[in-house]
Amino acid sequence: MTDQRSSRQLTTTVLGADDLSTLLDRVGRHEVMDLMIRRLGDRFRQHDLDTVEVRARDGFRYEKPDLGLVEWMPTHETGGPVVVKMVGYHPTNPVQRGLPSVIATSSMWDTETGHLEAIADATLLTALRTGAASGVATALMAVDRPIDVGLVGLGAQAVTQLHAITRVRDVRRVIGFDSDAEVADTFRSRVAFLGVDVHVVPPDRAATIISDVDVLCTCTSVDIGAGPVISDGVTRPGLHVNAVGADFPGKVELPRSLVERATVIPDTREQCELEGECQQLDRAAVGPELFELIKAPDEGEGLRDRLTVFDSTGWAVEDDVALRLAVELARAHGIGNEVHLERLPTDPYDPYGPAVGVTPSR
Amino acid sequence: MTDQRSSRQLTTTVLGADDLSTLLDRVGRHEVMDLMIRRLGDRFRQHDLDTVEVRARDGFRYEKPDLGLVEWMPTHETGGPVVVKMVGYHPTNPVQRGLPSVIATSSMWDTETGHLEAIADATLLTALRTGAASGVATALMAVDRPIDVGLVGLGAQAVTQLHAITRVRDVRRVIGFDSDAEVADTFRSRVAFLGVDVHVVPPDRAATIISDVDVLCTCTSVDIGAGPVISDGVTRPGLHVNAVGADFPGKVELPRSLVERATVIPDTREQCELEGECQQLDRAAVGPELFELIKAPDEGEGLRDRLTVFDSTGWAVEDDVALRLAVELARAHGIGNEVHLERLPTDPYDPYGPAVGVTPSR
Repeated sequence: MTDQRSSRQLTTTVLGADDLSTLLDRVGRHEVMDLMIRRLGDRFRQHDLDTVEVRARDGFRYEKPDLGLVEWMPTHETGGPVVVKMVGYHPTNPVQRGLPSVIATSSMWDTETGHLEAIADATLLTALRTGAASGVATALMAVDRPIDVGLVGLGAQAVTQLHAITRVRDVRRVIGFDSDAEVADTFRSRVAFLGVDVHVVPPDRAATIISDVDVLCTCTSVDIGAGPVISDGVTRPGLHVNAVGADFPGKVELPRSLVERATVIPDTREQCELEGECQQLDRAAVGPELFELIKAPDEGEGLRDRLTVFDSTGWAVEDDVALRLAVELARAHGIGNEVHLERLPTDPYDPYGPAVGVTPSR
Repeated sequence: MTDQRSSRQLTTTVLGADDLSTLLDRVGRHEVMDLMIRRLGDRFRQHDLDTVEVRARDGFRYEKPDLGLVEWMPTHETGGPVVVKMVGYHPTNPVQRGLPSVIATSSMWDTETGHLEAIADATLLTALRTGAASGVATALMAVDRPIDVGLVGLGAQAVTQLHAITRVRDVRRVIGFDSDAEVADTFRSRVAFLGVDVHVVPPDRAATIISDVDVLCTCTSVDIGAGPVISDGVTRPGLHVNAVGADFPGKVELPRSLVERATVIPDTREQCELEGECQQLDRAAVGPELFELIKAPDEGEGLRDRLTVFDSTGWAVEDDVALRLAVELARAHGIGNEVHLERLPTDPYDPYGPAVGVTPSR
């Protein structure tokens, strides 16, 4: 009970499909990726277990009307917004419905008022932050000279993986393959904007690719139990692998022997042990988390000459960084719509009464 | 990997402040409340523990920048949408920010595609569904003749509580009080649309009100540990109480002696034992849940002559019903905006490429 008898109006920033396309065009792909890499690095460096809460990914899985799941990834940094990414994963979408298998939105709530501050498409943001996380890891752990890059899986993730890597290293040559011939054939056009030397090769290159690159990204949609997606073999000194595809118990992309002799850096240990490459390791063999490594830069430097794996399962903190950056850029460039979503009654004790900013319709 | 190379466009229905006001005006308050009561009853009657999942309310609580919480209440009925209500609770909002303490939105995801089908303000919907739930309980458990109604707490909830009760019983007379004099003074004008005989009395009526009514609603924002809000006493035969205010461990509105001799029907047992009037009872003394009672109508009839308490802490299934009804009504009346929120690339393998329905800006 209070003496305040009228509410002020609040608006929610909506960043939809058009807005994110505009943002990408107006700010520029490279600039957005560079900013995302820098912000992620800064955030990891400041990461503090006492002030950041990340709730375990949770959701509903079902088999009707078709196999799928809707899950939420909530996080909150003290003093900052509550950020929740909602992800729908419906593997039959592409073939049966002409839709991507993953459709996502991210929302943020102001923790002073509880007001929904912004909601945005998160499909592009997820691709960007996943690329940027590999960018951060690659900058830290890959050899520091012009590199050859291997790409296993040439779908959407491969585009932002390669993009991020080109922003932190000189890329001399790219070798990539995909089990889907049409995806393979069209890859070069999708990364033409990067101006790098891309060689798309047949999928049997899985047997030897490990030996011919300095940085490898695995970003496949391999089925549960069907991995690994490459063979082990002799590697160049200091090979760094970004393993991006595993995201489910039983799903792995790398040979166990490779993982066992590498220093494996999870994005977030608990999740990687459940659904990443770390499933193949004893708990004690898992290295520090990426943020821990960034906080101890000497340790990171030492890793450039060693075989390293970044086990990237996707972390809510990355989604937080991505959404906040997108909202910041959108506001700076006048992009997005302000929507009067929450209905706040003029008299807080009269739910049916007139609402703030709403003209009565009769 | 798939042969489908282009996405179809999806839109999200946004029901904002204006839309809910329009809906209320166009459909009519009574019609909306009647529909909500009927839909809730139908849904409870069909409720099936095998096909409905309700995730425990979870969220972030914090003390910076001010005391507050943002929490989520997810539910899913097999074959239906995933519905998540997000609630911000910031008790200093009214005095410090001119905002209601509770601000809420509800969203629903299509489980065929994972697409965000709708997002709506949930402030009005929550008031409506909380009223309607008491309507369902009152219809089932109150004496079936013209009744006298008592209201303890005359804030926003009291309006929809009384409204719902007038839709299921003839109300002869209303006696109500509030600890806040201004809230008390203005209550009659807020319920004038109901055309019932309302007597606002001083708060010391808390000592005796229990003896003078057939249906009592407690809907206060009593502090933790400060309850009960009324005294126990002799009650009329068949008194039914809707206890709506308790929503936090340690928060109760009713005297323990009253709760102990009543048949107490929780909306959802687990939550009521944690934060409702059921906190005052041994687990074994808690009655069936409201939906169980509705499934066994004979049992409900028997309760009309007995002292009953509906322990209403708010159930995600009620929010599901409320959102689906609002979306249905909005679509039927051409209310709301269709927003192109999710950015689906025309080529699902090209995250930077053109998006479905988006005209390239350069």
